[in-house]
Amino acid sequence: MNPITQELLGQVSDLFGGPIGGAYNIREDGDCAGRQSTEHVKIESKLTQPGIDILVDPDTVGETIYIPAVVTHTGVNDLVYNDFYIGEGADVTIVAGCGVHNDGGSEARHNGVHRFFLQKGARVLYIEKHLGIGDGSGKRVIDPKTHIEMAEDSYMEMDTTQIKGVDSTKRESTAVLGKNAKLVIKEKIMTHGDQYAETNFVVDLNGEGSGADLVSRSVAKGTSRQLFRSRINGNAACNGHSACDAIIMDNGVVSAIPELTANHVDAALIHEAAIGKIAGEQMTKLMTLGLTEQQAEEKIIEGFLK
Amino acid sequence: MNPITQELLGQVSDLFGGPIGGAYNIREDGDCAGRQSTEHVKIESKLTQPGIDILVDPDTVGETIYIPAVVTHTGVNDLVYNDFYIGEGADVTIVAGCGVHNDGGSEARHNGVHRFFLQKGARVLYIEKHLGIGDGSGKRVIDPKTHIEMAEDSYMEMDTTQIKGVDSTKRESTAVLGKNAKLVIKEKIMTHGDQYAETNFVVDLNGEGSGADLVSRSVAKGTSRQLFRSRINGNAACNGHSACDAIIMDNGVVSAIPELTANHVDAALIHEAAIGKIAGEQMTKLMTLGLTEQQAEEKIIEGFLK
Repeated sequence: MNPITQELLGQVSDLFGGPIGGAYNIREDGDCAGRQSTEHVKIESKLTQPGIDILVDPDTVGETIYIPAVVTHTGVNDLVYNDFYIGEGADVTIVAGCGVHNDGGSEARHNGVHRFFLQKGARVLYIEKHLGIGDGSGKRVIDPKTHIEMAEDSYMEMDTTQIKGVDSTKRESTAVLGKNAKLVIKEKIMTHGDQYAETNFVVDLNGEGSGADLVSRSVAKGTSRQLFRSRINGNAACNGHSACDAIIMDNGVVSAIPELTANHVDAALIHEAAIGKIAGEQMTKLMTLGLTEQQAEEKIIEGFLK
Repeated sequence: MNPITQELLGQVSDLFGGPIGGAYNIREDGDCAGRQSTEHVKIESKLTQPGIDILVDPDTVGETIYIPAVVTHTGVNDLVYNDFYIGEGADVTIVAGCGVHNDGGSEARHNGVHRFFLQKGARVLYIEKHLGIGDGSGKRVIDPKTHIEMAEDSYMEMDTTQIKGVDSTKRESTAVLGKNAKLVIKEKIMTHGDQYAETNFVVDLNGEGSGADLVSRSVAKGTSRQLFRSRINGNAACNGHSACDAIIMDNGVVSAIPELTANHVDAALIHEAAIGKIAGEQMTKLMTLGLTEQQAEEKIIEGFLK
């Protein structure tokens, strides 16, 4: 495994190339750089598309599945389809970071299309970190698509973080929730330079007692631009909440367009959004404690995105 | 003046056909049914379009201007352009109700295109009530367009209410704010039957220190549908706030799509939306005080829309 892959894996999925206990699949520049199934978690190549099927047996509890993908050099355009089938009553963690290294003049791109099928009572913690590195003038692009289908009583939390260095990202996430299913999505994005980040969530609360909580926190520095769009459709007795908090700095631009639609009299939907710069008092307080302006700013942003 | 006009005027603008002290213009089925200018408020017919120019002299303080419009029978399609020029330092109230009576099988429609030009330091309270009556099967339609331009230090409050009986409404409001200008919009809408109501606000906060507060409260009963869209663009050091609270009943459907864009680092923008039915505890409390379910419901909605 090359040192760039090692560095990216370390940052996006806490994998340093050493032995891993659980199931994993490492994708490197469009190829499989390592795979392991376990007794209850099978990882299989798809027959007609690039990508894998991850099959988690019913009642599998406590396993962590790593499926990082890296693009290590310029000119790569990687497209992958990964499907996760989570058996009834299973409770697993899935770590799916993506790192793109670009040291050349062409674009380096990773497009991951992920679909999740949660059977009755299944629980998933899905952690996704996106990172770009390298000194090339070519763009580092990550455009993930995530689709989630949740059966009765299932639960999923999706923690998605874009750390830095991704020049352009367009993130599409859709979810359909059955009876009493709960979905939590926590998104953190920081953009700098002239980066662009776009988020689109569409959640259909179809089942009685279903609920969704979408929380986005973002920081836009430099001349970067961000667009946050979320759509929650309440089609049954359900609860939906969406919040978008954004800090703008320098000449950063942020748009937030949340959309709530109550199609059922027992749907309860709430949204809040706030966009602004760091409050002056916060800066003053930290600077009287001895921090420079830059240190104070970093401290506040670190806390905001934690 | 026919009795239908009298009834509509009474409900939309507190005018009962009696003498009025201030400036007024009454529009009835596309024609002028009465007009009066005052020393400092001139009302003049437009030369090339249907409609009037309302010219308020600088420093005119305390006058109330009535410009109600009524459509009294089926088959009328009334389109009117009214422009309001508010002189520097003036402080006036404008009452612009619109009533549509339809007792036939064809559509009865009023489209009012209103533009406001507020000079430096001008203040306007703009009150607009929309109402439909009559037993005809033809639709009662009111599609108002409002455009507001606000110079330095000007202030405008727009109170817009759709009481009942309007089958379809599409409301477009745009505003451009200069330095330290403040805009408050309060919207109240109740829909019933299979009515449809759509609201679109677009506010550009261009001036340093400008601010906008958009507050919408709505109730959707029966199979009625409502769409609320607001867009606030913060293009300077400014404050923008938008809130949408909606109560749904029966099979009513409400969508809220607020949009915030901060194009300036000193723009502070906030939005909240909540859609849901009347809380059960509220109903229980009023019913233990002796109210029937229907009375309790009416009480709560009355309070909500007050």
